Amino acid sequence: MKLLITGFSGFVGRHFLECLESHKMDIEVLGVARSFGQLPPAQYRHVRFAHRELDLLDRPEVEDTMATFRPTHVLHLAAYSSVAFSWDRPVASFSNNTNVLLNLLEAVRRLDRSCRVLSVGSSEQYGDVGPTDLPLRESSPLRPISPYGVARVAQEMLSKVYVQGYGLDIVMTRSFNHIGPYQRDAFVVPSIAKQLISIRHSRAEPLIRTGDRAIVRDFVDVRDVVRAYLELLLNGPSGEIYNVCSGEGVRIAEVIEMMRQQVGVELELETDPRLVRPNDNTAIVGCREKIEAATGWVPHIKLSESLSSVLQWWHAKLASQRA
Amino acid sequence: MKLLITGFSGFVGRHFLECLESHKMDIEVLGVARSFGQLPPAQYRHVRFAHRELDLLDRPEVEDTMATFRPTHVLHLAAYSSVAFSWDRPVASFSNNTNVLLNLLEAVRRLDRSCRVLSVGSSEQYGDVGPTDLPLRESSPLRPISPYGVARVAQEMLSKVYVQGYGLDIVMTRSFNHIGPYQRDAFVVPSIAKQLISIRHSRAEPLIRTGDRAIVRDFVDVRDVVRAYLELLLNGPSGEIYNVCSGEGVRIAEVIEMMRQQVGVELELETDPRLVRPNDNTAIVGCREKIEAATGWVPHIKLSESLSSVLQWWHAKLASQRA
Repeated sequence: MKLLITGFSGFVGRHFLECLESHKMDIEVLGVARSFGQLPPAQYRHVRFAHRELDLLDRPEVEDTMATFRPTHVLHLAAYSSVAFSWDRPVASFSNNTNVLLNLLEAVRRLDRSCRVLSVGSSEQYGDVGPTDLPLRESSPLRPISPYGVARVAQEMLSKVYVQGYGLDIVMTRSFNHIGPYQRDAFVVPSIAKQLISIRHSRAEPLIRTGDRAIVRDFVDVRDVVRAYLELLLNGPSGEIYNVCSGEGVRIAEVIEMMRQQVGVELELETDPRLVRPNDNTAIVGCREKIEAATGWVPHIKLSESLSSVLQWWHAKLASQRA
Repeated sequence: MKLLITGFSGFVGRHFLECLESHKMDIEVLGVARSFGQLPPAQYRHVRFAHRELDLLDRPEVEDTMATFRPTHVLHLAAYSSVAFSWDRPVASFSNNTNVLLNLLEAVRRLDRSCRVLSVGSSEQYGDVGPTDLPLRESSPLRPISPYGVARVAQEMLSKVYVQGYGLDIVMTRSFNHIGPYQRDAFVVPSIAKQLISIRHSRAEPLIRTGDRAIVRDFVDVRDVVRAYLELLLNGPSGEIYNVCSGEGVRIAEVIEMMRQQVGVELELETDPRLVRPNDNTAIVGCREKIEAATGWVPHIKLSESLSSVLQWWHAKLASQRA
């Protein structure tokens, strides 16, 4: 088995490697990204890992990488996954999400249609959902309300077109908010975690500015997410779409409070209008029946445990920076 | 009133000008296109028309055009509107349809959010529809089955995001197959019309190769279409989507037979597998209640009359080429 992972610089790719290793999988992995921050430890026992810089907008380079590496499987993680960025720079966000997918699928179409692709999408595709729409099922209507959400819908619809029209072998996800170690602090949970740790060490005022804390999200631990991806990559039926979610909704305010208690500090919260998006979903909570029925996957890690891992990771990271 | 028309090289822009003129509208129009074929007659009595070459993928040029001309209204017709092309060159088709829309909306957002935009979409957005889904309403699910269809869905969803998130003033259409004089023969009706006229003048074998003739489409005369666009541009409520259709379905085979009878020739038909698409909608028929309720618009021109106009136009065109 030869696996290409796109968007390897994100935190999901690294967790996926660890998942493969823990399953003792005999597998060759090429991780590609436009640029790399910190790479995972060079040596695994079972996984043979290499990496390569690759801009997925550069179509000849994409074709060259595919032709050279000849993957049997592709895990397509690459995305401009920030909703906030998509409001600032809608054109860049949109084309980076859709055009990279198209370049990848075109390369698969030309070189080897039997190569299986897992195309990772987002719960932001659901968009404008009311209380009666919850929990969100894969059959729920898609009414995206950000440029990012639209790009993800387009990605999924294009993937389906490539399955139906060109016979490609693609499984799709709509992945809900995932959290865990290594996630950068552009996202809400690691951002709060980092600030709490700084406050704990008296390096910062006990004040945190946030966006809208009343919104409800469905958080799932990245280590559960990568197990779901592995299941779908190996056993998911082509052309199908799966929610990857915990099935439980929690208000951002509650998440912050859970973390605050774990860190054991006093805290003042302030809403920063600049962090509130032009329009946002009040609540996004998924239904995970479909993926459980297809693969048996259920999440194992509780939210409190995930948050604890995130806090521990930031604690260690900030300590090493102080050292 | 100052109107920018994108995609002016297509046949709709020209009919739109004629519609404005027949309404005696005091209006300044700038028609833009990547390149121009035949331009409309230079002088109108009421409409003041100018044209300019503009590649909508060139964002600085788009902004410059908008800043110089300062339109109060935009009729966005520009599109790579061939489904067949989108199967041959999915990447080009997709980015040409979505990125041009994004460049245009970004220019409007930066320069003048009160500028009204009519964003023209397609019935291909509905995609995979069964007999029980007919007639298609604006609330029907979108399941596009070609790269072109996905691009059109993305265009519409992005337009809605710009209305909700940035306060732009955009009305959207899903326009069904339109036919009429000046349409180029890449589309089925003008292609058949041209061939029938050639057969009539004994210049060609009485044999026509077609794609799948069993599919059902909803044809609407372009002169009715442009009246609908004018109504929506002037009076349509922002953020709303309207089918522009006849409300009646007809098999391609019937359309060919109606034209054959009008021309008065014998004809043999053959299915050319190269003209059959990888997957195609069996039937696309729209419901036109919403636009009628909002604007009073109903189509005036019957299919037989439209086909007669198309045939007359090709007769004159081919005669002038022979002369």
